[in-house]
Amino acid sequence: MAIGTQVPEAIARFLHEPTPEEWLAEACGRVPEMLLDHANCELKAASTAMGFLYRYADRTMLAQRMSKLAREELRHFEQVRSIMEEMAIPFERLSASRYAGSLRDAARTQEPYKLLDMLLIGALIEARSCERFALIAPRLPEKLGSFYNGLLASEARHFEHYIGFAQSECALSAAEIEARLAELKDIEAKLVSGPDPEFRFHSGKPM
Amino acid sequence: MAIGTQVPEAIARFLHEPTPEEWLAEACGRVPEMLLDHANCELKAASTAMGFLYRYADRTMLAQRMSKLAREELRHFEQVRSIMEEMAIPFERLSASRYAGSLRDAARTQEPYKLLDMLLIGALIEARSCERFALIAPRLPEKLGSFYNGLLASEARHFEHYIGFAQSECALSAAEIEARLAELKDIEAKLVSGPDPEFRFHSGKPM
Repeated sequence: MAIGTQVPEAIARFLHEPTPEEWLAEACGRVPEMLLDHANCELKAASTAMGFLYRYADRTMLAQRMSKLAREELRHFEQVRSIMEEMAIPFERLSASRYAGSLRDAARTQEPYKLLDMLLIGALIEARSCERFALIAPRLPEKLGSFYNGLLASEARHFEHYIGFAQSECALSAAEIEARLAELKDIEAKLVSGPDPEFRFHSGKPM
Repeated sequence: MAIGTQVPEAIARFLHEPTPEEWLAEACGRVPEMLLDHANCELKAASTAMGFLYRYADRTMLAQRMSKLAREELRHFEQVRSIMEEMAIPFERLSASRYAGSLRDAARTQEPYKLLDMLLIGALIEARSCERFALIAPRLPEKLGSFYNGLLASEARHFEHYIGFAQSECALSAAEIEARLAELKDIEAKLVSGPDPEFRFHSGKPM
């Protein structure tokens, strides 16, 4: 058992609802599916970062950071795939959870609100991932738990980068950003704490 | 001037036509555009590698390698962007050259021919990039020339990976692969040696 993992305080404060205990219990019994979905999530996180790169290519700081972020997510993808190989978990197609899609559906379509919303949603997804890694790591077999512990720091850093860019790239007032963030936090909290028919890394309370 | 760059023999033998001298002369006079297009090419190369990852996610070896390859291309993207910053070259939108699109249009749509063609096209693009880096490096300012020299080795490795996967992943005979490769080499050679109204990293003979 990996011991002593804690949800970083900044992350716990950021999220409107903690992950329900029922999700954790479910995840401990469904490790192969969790890993499979986790691998997909890393790939999607890399694609999302690259989406910023393409759409806002003229913003050098953002482009450089998102490229680095995509590289880190891809590295995590490879690490999860390696662990799956070691654990003899075959790769299967898995439908995406409702989580990221529902959050993206909430993003506005006009700039600069689109950029702001996509960055805040990025921060939320990284923060939630960080929280779940911290919560589940101590309950997993040691090697997997240690790996998840190691991911914590990256996810926390990615969270900070997304928040930093939301503040620096959108030319909107702190109050406006804060108000929108509160709305998105509520949507996110409902998705992870409300009943969910499907088990995934970012799913809600098992039904 | 960076001295002593040579096109690796395996690359020179692989390509049906060498880059025309006219393209080299043009490129030396249009370094900012070349760098801008080069940055875009690295990004597209990363996206292409990730496309394999999504489409053939159940092939672990291919997935792991393509993920690493995407990371390398993204790293190169960041390096090109840094050099552009240093040289005070502003980022601008640039239309894609006809090169990669025309090659992709030649890919068949049925499996396993689609996978084969996409891998062979990947090998061709890497080989051509490698050849052009080698040819232009000695004519560029030292720092940029050294950077291009450094990219040579990566591109040559990527070329080998693409060829290796074409041989191992498609369950087609060596003769069939060779015949198809010869066809694609001809298409590629025409694109880089035929007249081209637009200057890009992979463009043809300037008109």
